[in-house]
Amino acid sequence: MRRAWIISSGTELVLGQSLDTNSAWLARELAGLGIRSERHVTLPDTAGALREVLLAAVEQADLVLITGGLGPTEDDLTRFELAAALGVELERDAASIEQMRAFFATRGRQPTEANLVQALIPRGARALPNSCGTAPGIRIELRGVPCFALPGVPTEMRAMFAASVAPEIRSLAEGTVLRTRTLHTFGIPEAELGSRIADLMRRGNNPEVGTTAEFSVIGIRMNATAASEAAALEMLDVTEREIRARLGSAVYGVDGQTLAGATGRGLLAAGRTLAVAESCTGGLLGALITDEPGSSAYFLGGIISYANEIKRDLLGVPGGLLDRHGAVSRPVAGAMAEGAAVLLRADYGLGITGIAGPTGGTPEKPVGLVYVGLSTPATTRTFELRLGSDAPREAIRTRAARAALNALRLELLESAGPRAADAPSTHAPK
Amino acid sequence: MRRAWIISSGTELVLGQSLDTNSAWLARELAGLGIRSERHVTLPDTAGALREVLLAAVEQADLVLITGGLGPTEDDLTRFELAAALGVELERDAASIEQMRAFFATRGRQPTEANLVQALIPRGARALPNSCGTAPGIRIELRGVPCFALPGVPTEMRAMFAASVAPEIRSLAEGTVLRTRTLHTFGIPEAELGSRIADLMRRGNNPEVGTTAEFSVIGIRMNATAASEAAALEMLDVTEREIRARLGSAVYGVDGQTLAGATGRGLLAAGRTLAVAESCTGGLLGALITDEPGSSAYFLGGIISYANEIKRDLLGVPGGLLDRHGAVSRPVAGAMAEGAAVLLRADYGLGITGIAGPTGGTPEKPVGLVYVGLSTPATTRTFELRLGSDAPREAIRTRAARAALNALRLELLESAGPRAADAPSTHAPK
Repeated sequence: MRRAWIISSGTELVLGQSLDTNSAWLARELAGLGIRSERHVTLPDTAGALREVLLAAVEQADLVLITGGLGPTEDDLTRFELAAALGVELERDAASIEQMRAFFATRGRQPTEANLVQALIPRGARALPNSCGTAPGIRIELRGVPCFALPGVPTEMRAMFAASVAPEIRSLAEGTVLRTRTLHTFGIPEAELGSRIADLMRRGNNPEVGTTAEFSVIGIRMNATAASEAAALEMLDVTEREIRARLGSAVYGVDGQTLAGATGRGLLAAGRTLAVAESCTGGLLGALITDEPGSSAYFLGGIISYANEIKRDLLGVPGGLLDRHGAVSRPVAGAMAEGAAVLLRADYGLGITGIAGPTGGTPEKPVGLVYVGLSTPATTRTFELRLGSDAPREAIRTRAARAALNALRLELLESAGPRAADAPSTHAPK
Repeated sequence: MRRAWIISSGTELVLGQSLDTNSAWLARELAGLGIRSERHVTLPDTAGALREVLLAAVEQADLVLITGGLGPTEDDLTRFELAAALGVELERDAASIEQMRAFFATRGRQPTEANLVQALIPRGARALPNSCGTAPGIRIELRGVPCFALPGVPTEMRAMFAASVAPEIRSLAEGTVLRTRTLHTFGIPEAELGSRIADLMRRGNNPEVGTTAEFSVIGIRMNATAASEAAALEMLDVTEREIRARLGSAVYGVDGQTLAGATGRGLLAAGRTLAVAESCTGGLLGALITDEPGSSAYFLGGIISYANEIKRDLLGVPGGLLDRHGAVSRPVAGAMAEGAAVLLRADYGLGITGIAGPTGGTPEKPVGLVYVGLSTPATTRTFELRLGSDAPREAIRTRAARAALNALRLELLESAGPRAADAPSTHAPK
């Protein structure tokens, strides 16, 4: 499979003042065209830096994409670096000047001298028209490797990639395509999950299988390389089925699907509604649920019961429970879940109470101790989570909200019967 | 000034399936310590790749930071690559095994064999304790250059950098120091803000001044280079005072401070309490407020009134208002704010109702139309926001929640009197 390097140029990127989203976008586009991104390099606007990396890139890559450094100001060096790498002079490109004059004319302005510098391209290079800005892109061939320099502004870069880069490099892909898919799981620790699918993760496999972890969600990504899209998708389907067979209901979604979305689909399928009662998560569970478009079909609302009086007066948690067990306790989590379901007349209620830290922990009830209550039409269940007394507040809150969603998701799977739990959920591949 | 390379390892990063935020974060931290990041390189989990880049890095950099590839699964190669670059064997680190057992013990679990692989470090290397995960970091010295391998999980990486990397590399910075500070503003559009401080943003200035925008928050970053920390901080202070004088109460915080934190400080200073009523934000406003440790001192809780019945039955929004004006309307936002304050017995109430999209808009009430209600001890105010009918759901929800917080922040500043509004708020520089 053909290999690409992606280079982004910008002092603000390398100093971390802006986040480079261009490289990831280009890598995904390349994958779709059957070209594998092998390296991203981010450089400051310093003379010589791009030249050096470019010469190394063409030794290892079949294609080089560069973003940034094509603007009209002092620190825009890309055109000079390309010319230096080629050992040629810069020349004004007549078509680019004409296009620039037309761009400014529609805005009632004239290009400045600084703008006209943007029409300079290395001798023998090709200018790439910019449909939404002033700087043309530049295509050179260095030691036989095509290199495309694109603007750093994402909208201009994306339009130019689609118009001038994708059509040419499609022919580079030479028969192979790369297709990717990610399965999302909750509930199996990463090390255990890894050991259950260790054979699938073996180096050199096709599809390649790897894992990523974030706040209790373990993602399993699969990259398949094949001669055709259909063959790659078939390989992904086979591996997906195998992983689902081994991990069962821990798999909740594919690609862009979220845990809240999976839970919502369960509610929708069952024709049931949900209400929440949140203490330490303070609204985060509701925010995750309503981040899904269409969630109003099953989510009624909830109570953020940060103060104990709200738990008692609004949710009807008995004062005696609060006194005997404390606000962070199994019975209070259950009573909160029931209270939310009753007050909002929902079929299911979820309650969360815990200690998100960094202060407020005790030896008996340390930071990271969270109770989740799940009230169903039939019963109320409670879950104890120990999320780590040294874990950051954000991690504890996110994990607690996700654990609550997952408890409801599994409950809905179970009450829908074994067939629903085993069947691979339908998904929309990327 | 000392130079650093930052390497991130992960096939999902180089293929664009995840966005690398670690490198930018590390670059900012390094700048704060007077070390300039010169290059970021992103690599796949392929044997040999990290080794090769590492050997190139130590030729050009005084410091190398690596993130990712320390997990317990097959595709985690960093420890093997470090050992190969050094030409030494891996050995089990007894202290790391002990720490791992303790980590699992507080979670009622045992480390697996896969986890124990994480305690392998190259002979002669030093393990870096992980305060919030299982994988220790690794410090090696390669051709006299210190190289630190940190976990890819951002929370673990950040904690480890602060505890084990920053203290050591502080001594590397020599002669000139780079100090950075970011002011956060809300309410002035980026172009207008830029024109008000255009002279401060001129190229070549020291401090360098630039802006960044994210969901209505405009950040103004300042980078000062000087011979001493005291001189750099003084330069930042002078520029900060000048910017505050021009932008007034639009500036709400510095560096890590959030809009919710600034609003919370206002409530705390006034000895007042807050309750919320959320429709389209579904809990996000509460989640932002309670993301601040100590928010229980002023935040009582709220109602997530996603369904109209909840607005009517719980918050007491008159059914007539809902019928006449619709749920997304100025009067309903005001009544929601009042209802939350009354029901939860809070001094202030914030209500949000709107259309977050992507569907549900009409010509009269398009996606992005949001009303915010603010109930104060004296009166109720309402605000209309038009956040763009093509804006993503996340942008609309985040901007709406931030606008509500800002309305309360300005109200508290005003009622505290002109002196409080004009005085630069105290801040904790990085």
